[in-house]
Amino acid sequence: MSGARSSSAISPATLQALTARFGSQLSTSPAVRRNHASVEGFHADLPPDAVLMARSTADVADAVTICAAGGAPVIAYGAGSSLEGHVLAVQGGLTVDLSEMNAVLEVNTQDMDARVQAGVTRKQLNAHLRDQGLFFPVDPGADATLGGMVSTGASGTTTIRYGGMRANVLGLTVVLPSGEVITTGGRVRKSSAGYDLTALFTGAEGTLGVVTEVQVRLHGIPEETAAAVCAFSTLKGAVDAVIYAVQYGVPMARMELLDALSMRAVNAYSRTAYAEEPTLFLEFHGSATGVKEQAETFAGIAKEHGGGAFDWSTAQEDRDRLWEARHKAYFAALALAPGKVSITTDVCVPVSRLAECIVETQADIEASGLVGPILGHVGDGNFHAILMIDPQDPGEIARGKAVAGRIVERALALGGTCTGEHGVGVGKKAYLLAEQGTAVPLMALIKQAIDPTGLMNPGKIFDAG
Amino acid sequence: MSGARSSSAISPATLQALTARFGSQLSTSPAVRRNHASVEGFHADLPPDAVLMARSTADVADAVTICAAGGAPVIAYGAGSSLEGHVLAVQGGLTVDLSEMNAVLEVNTQDMDARVQAGVTRKQLNAHLRDQGLFFPVDPGADATLGGMVSTGASGTTTIRYGGMRANVLGLTVVLPSGEVITTGGRVRKSSAGYDLTALFTGAEGTLGVVTEVQVRLHGIPEETAAAVCAFSTLKGAVDAVIYAVQYGVPMARMELLDALSMRAVNAYSRTAYAEEPTLFLEFHGSATGVKEQAETFAGIAKEHGGGAFDWSTAQEDRDRLWEARHKAYFAALALAPGKVSITTDVCVPVSRLAECIVETQADIEASGLVGPILGHVGDGNFHAILMIDPQDPGEIARGKAVAGRIVERALALGGTCTGEHGVGVGKKAYLLAEQGTAVPLMALIKQAIDPTGLMNPGKIFDAG
Repeated sequence: MSGARSSSAISPATLQALTARFGSQLSTSPAVRRNHASVEGFHADLPPDAVLMARSTADVADAVTICAAGGAPVIAYGAGSSLEGHVLAVQGGLTVDLSEMNAVLEVNTQDMDARVQAGVTRKQLNAHLRDQGLFFPVDPGADATLGGMVSTGASGTTTIRYGGMRANVLGLTVVLPSGEVITTGGRVRKSSAGYDLTALFTGAEGTLGVVTEVQVRLHGIPEETAAAVCAFSTLKGAVDAVIYAVQYGVPMARMELLDALSMRAVNAYSRTAYAEEPTLFLEFHGSATGVKEQAETFAGIAKEHGGGAFDWSTAQEDRDRLWEARHKAYFAALALAPGKVSITTDVCVPVSRLAECIVETQADIEASGLVGPILGHVGDGNFHAILMIDPQDPGEIARGKAVAGRIVERALALGGTCTGEHGVGVGKKAYLLAEQGTAVPLMALIKQAIDPTGLMNPGKIFDAG
Repeated sequence: MSGARSSSAISPATLQALTARFGSQLSTSPAVRRNHASVEGFHADLPPDAVLMARSTADVADAVTICAAGGAPVIAYGAGSSLEGHVLAVQGGLTVDLSEMNAVLEVNTQDMDARVQAGVTRKQLNAHLRDQGLFFPVDPGADATLGGMVSTGASGTTTIRYGGMRANVLGLTVVLPSGEVITTGGRVRKSSAGYDLTALFTGAEGTLGVVTEVQVRLHGIPEETAAAVCAFSTLKGAVDAVIYAVQYGVPMARMELLDALSMRAVNAYSRTAYAEEPTLFLEFHGSATGVKEQAETFAGIAKEHGGGAFDWSTAQEDRDRLWEARHKAYFAALALAPGKVSITTDVCVPVSRLAECIVETQADIEASGLVGPILGHVGDGNFHAILMIDPQDPGEIARGKAVAGRIVERALALGGTCTGEHGVGVGKKAYLLAEQGTAVPLMALIKQAIDPTGLMNPGKIFDAG
């Protein structure tokens, strides 16, 4: 889909100032611009007017200063893996690509923290850390940049045990809309020194400034890791096993639920032979004794809730195969319907309501005639329906949007949120109002105070005015 | 000490409006007012002009609305256990006491969450939860209210394992400076629905609004709990044992360090007979097997670092005795110097620098001639020096303040913070500027946007203008 605008949001004088400062780091080539607006999921292409490959915080500060003077919007770009159109240049402007700011600046092994430039990806960081017995736990699936993960408040498969970005970011360097550079937080594990600006920028989707450096918490690679797959006769049984295990205090590291259709997609895509039933993908971290105890405890719980064969393995190749299949589940889902695109939902509900929310959603999808596998981070109550639609078929588009809307309404009625981890972006602004109605005016007040001209990633989270 | 002002900050018309609305819930009695300005630690008494015993969010909203119309400051009050003078009426005004808003509104056992009024204390909540196998983990020592713990961003002895308030608050009800009531967050475990206002109000010290309800995460009471005490020949040995245990992945639930002088104070106050050496108080949570493994692993690590006898016990009475001694350590310290008052410091440094920071601080205190035991949450790098001073001796006051200032400077030079968990309050405003210099103007901008007339707990965190 194309949503090209007819005129540039960057004035000739601003473009000239940017070119003078950045030379070949700046591009206005249609291919480069288009490449920065090609996003996952169901969103129109909205390319920026120019793209800057930033190499330093000073580059970003100068670019923001020039754009502020010229009234040009600024959109921060990391890996482009957002599912909510965060990098779309809704009002045109300058996209600041931080992917070349990919230096690991500092690792403190005793303190288990690191400072990285915003363009470092999570896989790059973990490769860097491996020899030091440390890892960064937040895993949204995609190999996102740390700056992008901060800005969407990302989480993922390990959040049940290690928390998401909010729990693992200690401090930030941010370029404010004025071009001023601030640092928030620090290296310490905890602080009550004034307002928690680190938390404010985490999940702000680039609407309050551009994150250029991130101080993160690290964790020790566990002595032992085991992975397991367990199919259940009912979806409710799988969810109940998870609830019971958490209450019982089993310190699960990963608990992922895939519905029967997702398992069919995984088998077809990854050439695996899993049972095509509601299935949990699990991981256990701890000492050798601890992991064995956790796995055996969970096996007992699973059996009581209709779980089938429970095989667990500590072998690296078994674990890699399992998690590769899980991480490719999104692409496996897309492959169920070649030529179609996806609307990916992201609701999160209290876990006691999760089974009913998913079962009702499955029935709704089936009644709509769409293909829509469901998978999720079941320990957190967060799941995704991947609704496949033909972008050329207005009727199917309308049906897909209607199902997605009902999923949100269902989640909100159950005490949930419209977005557990993907953010609001361009597509969930109305849902945010429905969910956080009394709080949105305060969010808008903060936005107005920090970015009075509304040039930072406009059109995301809420509409101006 | 007294800092009484000569005139009231509440106009006669405002007082009349408050009296008409609240009747006997409102008091202007000198004893009640003084009682709400009698704070822990070294701060002048600054009583409010009136005190409201609030019974509902509507009460708070109406009080804030009336005060906003009349230009009167509003100070929220919970248990009064703040150590940084948060409840002092620096500019007079109305203190809103929330201690009678002490209903546990909802407990969801499957979801392990609860909603409470802001005046519920942590001990009250845990007594309420005990039969359900759940507990609320944040333990700052004092039996603070949940609303107060939100507002100072409290943490404490269990933060190393369960996180502090930031990790355990899911949502809030807040009365804004306009009198408007908003809800933030929700019941879900995670969300990326807009700016994280819950995090913004956590640690805002009542300067952005009054928290009236708190949604908290709960945790399962572990199958087994063991406590242990271990003395070390050197303070560095104790700290190194902790660093090694964390890196090794021992999931410690509590790790408290008391220096030799603190142990002497504890023995004298609690009639215990611990070795008067640098000592770790420890707690292990898990399965029976897991706790045994953790305790044995830690015993081995302690031995390698100069640890002495390592006795651990799962008996409730042994654990209670141990933690009661630890929790009374502040009062034990005060009892070292009867008639004196304390300046309690609260720095936090990267744990790799903790031993040098404490050892240099001990030497500094000794050189100053003051009595100042040191204890802390060693796993987080956070420690407190309790500097005893004679409030009638200007020279001792000056020496105490100078030592406290040097402790902060030392911590900042080591990459630390001036306050790990007590907040900024009235006493650390200059230190906040030294530590978070580039970020403070943005904090002030947010304060100005949300509370333009500066009536919410004035004189805390930063000075107006």
